[in-house]
Amino acid sequence: MYSRDETVKLSLSFKTVFYGDVEMCAPKDIIICGNQSKAEEFVKKVQGKKPAFVCVIGNTETAKIPGISAAGANPEFTDYTPAADMELLHYGKCKVIDGVPVTPDGIPTPAIITMSALELAEMPIFVVNGGCRVLPFTPYFEVGGTPGGDIRTGKAVENPKEVFEESFLLGKNLAKTVDYLVVGESTPGGTTTALGVLLALGYDAEGKESSSFPQNPHDLKINVVREGLTAAKADGKQIRGVLDAVAVVGDPMMPAAAGLVAGAALSVPVIMAGGTQMAAVLAVIKGMKPEVLKNIALGTTRWIIEDKQSDMISLVAQSAEVPILAVNLDFSESKYDGLRIYETGLVKEGAGAGGVSVAAILGSNGTITCRSLLEKIDENYARILDLEE
Amino acid sequence: MYSRDETVKLSLSFKTVFYGDVEMCAPKDIIICGNQSKAEEFVKKVQGKKPAFVCVIGNTETAKIPGISAAGANPEFTDYTPAADMELLHYGKCKVIDGVPVTPDGIPTPAIITMSALELAEMPIFVVNGGCRVLPFTPYFEVGGTPGGDIRTGKAVENPKEVFEESFLLGKNLAKTVDYLVVGESTPGGTTTALGVLLALGYDAEGKESSSFPQNPHDLKINVVREGLTAAKADGKQIRGVLDAVAVVGDPMMPAAAGLVAGAALSVPVIMAGGTQMAAVLAVIKGMKPEVLKNIALGTTRWIIEDKQSDMISLVAQSAEVPILAVNLDFSESKYDGLRIYETGLVKEGAGAGGVSVAAILGSNGTITCRSLLEKIDENYARILDLEE
Repeated sequence: MYSRDETVKLSLSFKTVFYGDVEMCAPKDIIICGNQSKAEEFVKKVQGKKPAFVCVIGNTETAKIPGISAAGANPEFTDYTPAADMELLHYGKCKVIDGVPVTPDGIPTPAIITMSALELAEMPIFVVNGGCRVLPFTPYFEVGGTPGGDIRTGKAVENPKEVFEESFLLGKNLAKTVDYLVVGESTPGGTTTALGVLLALGYDAEGKESSSFPQNPHDLKINVVREGLTAAKADGKQIRGVLDAVAVVGDPMMPAAAGLVAGAALSVPVIMAGGTQMAAVLAVIKGMKPEVLKNIALGTTRWIIEDKQSDMISLVAQSAEVPILAVNLDFSESKYDGLRIYETGLVKEGAGAGGVSVAAILGSNGTITCRSLLEKIDENYARILDLEE
Repeated sequence: MYSRDETVKLSLSFKTVFYGDVEMCAPKDIIICGNQSKAEEFVKKVQGKKPAFVCVIGNTETAKIPGISAAGANPEFTDYTPAADMELLHYGKCKVIDGVPVTPDGIPTPAIITMSALELAEMPIFVVNGGCRVLPFTPYFEVGGTPGGDIRTGKAVENPKEVFEESFLLGKNLAKTVDYLVVGESTPGGTTTALGVLLALGYDAEGKESSSFPQNPHDLKINVVREGLTAAKADGKQIRGVLDAVAVVGDPMMPAAAGLVAGAALSVPVIMAGGTQMAAVLAVIKGMKPEVLKNIALGTTRWIIEDKQSDMISLVAQSAEVPILAVNLDFSESKYDGLRIYETGLVKEGAGAGGVSVAAILGSNGTITCRSLLEKIDENYARILDLEE
């Protein structure tokens, strides 16, 4: 485990190794946390390479508990967010809803970041339906999943084993087609289910999960998880492994994402693109296929690793010593209030925004930077919200 | 258009150009029909390259008309054949049925050929659900399709335009990940719906569609199609384009396969793997995106191009001058009766068997041949049917 101070120190020295260009005053585009040599090794494997992005989507009734998720204008609306995000990534506009997904404060989905990075890098995108109540009008893979239950019942995911296995097979097949994979997710309520799985497995996770709200509702999340674990115990359920934890207090994105990453990482590198939700997926992978951990890095945003109300670095380090690569996007120089406000800690991450940005930069041989990415994000934001530039 | 005699002449000279090795007495592995220079150009583009195989599956109620389809032990059973085929390709065994799909005579599915070629070439496989009543326990793409109706009603496919467009997008994304694509299909009853679409579009197709039966039920198929066209006319439906033809007398595989091929062929070569059913898909592509035809070849089996009861070469040539590459598999030297009987004209093709074999051979730099393929097919046949070798 790394302390936050140690991480920042590593990051500062490290980003200059890879992306600092003092003479040109270029921005430092990627912040690296964790073991330096492992990070260096991973970056070498993927630099200049062309990945595919696979986004795993899921719904859990847990997102509808008031105060849990800001991934939608109101709790009921969170069912639409993953499908709408995927449509945005495919078409540049949504079909299942008007406009784009927003937080209760009206802040737009981080999928705008993802779409901009995909566009600049001409990166292919595939969707995997972990288990959604609302499905996108895009192509998507089925892997046998169904929508997730409210974890307070202790009945969260029906068939995590079958989904993990189908998804594992899919990951093996996708790995034959590309240099490496970037696997992201869009799952409203997912930081609460992530907390659930991590606590169920005995991780030191309380107060360390992130939130799309500016004020992280840690106490509410912990109470929801405890209620679920108590309900499962009352039903006589025991947690004997990671998939049991998913079945009881997880969400349907998890077994699909974990299987996909594990199947692909058998043969190619994988960037797991997401915030603290990916720490729970990593814990599932550690339980199922620990041998693939050496082929994995986490990709996220600066807003996640600098968040004082969560600790992704600690959560990841409890599973495995995998590097974290964070895109050094800074929206304070955006033209638009709706993006500048990301700097106050809203939203932070989602739909693979950070990891896809990292991959776009790493694959571009210097042509894609945080600066060009922000320009594209501003442009897309203006177009999508129909603003005058 | 090429006459059959002309084709055979071209084939004989052509196969020696690419794969003849008289000194080593190696088998001539691929027979080429059509315009020599176009064929040569296509082969140059894909030789030594690594494709992915995408199999589009569909069900049509048309397959349940007695005497129409041998892709199942009985008409009702044809619903299970595509799903079972896909499971065979993923797991080496079926899950939705015991054993493997067979004809009413007990002859096993040509997916055994496909699985053997995939295995030798280590080729990735993806499934697209064009519209199936029975879905496989494998990962598969959804592109918005639904199962097809009995074409005698004149209501065959609900939403071909939406499916074509989603599949087109999928093809564009898949093309970013691989050197080229091989697109096959598994759709019982599909030669009848292919006849339907070709006749609806004014092609000279009567008596030219193939059949999985040894005695091709041409008259029955033609009557079924005419009944459908009459019913559609009575409903006031007009056929103004290729997707109208699909909607009236086609099947749900067609818009999915056509969209996929067209989207991919915008940027990479595509082998359309199948028999005369692919002639109808080609007609759809010609109607929707004629500019991609130059990036397409047909891949099939010797049993199809030598079949005296059908004429794939004429059907294809009526759409476009695209080369046909036929794998020169000869089962007369198989160890097993159930495979030797293919030489009498049963089954002939399916689940992309011919095109995947062609791609496996072309990508192997000489290590995969019809001989090594037959050995692997014999081995898989014995294992699957639990026979003593």
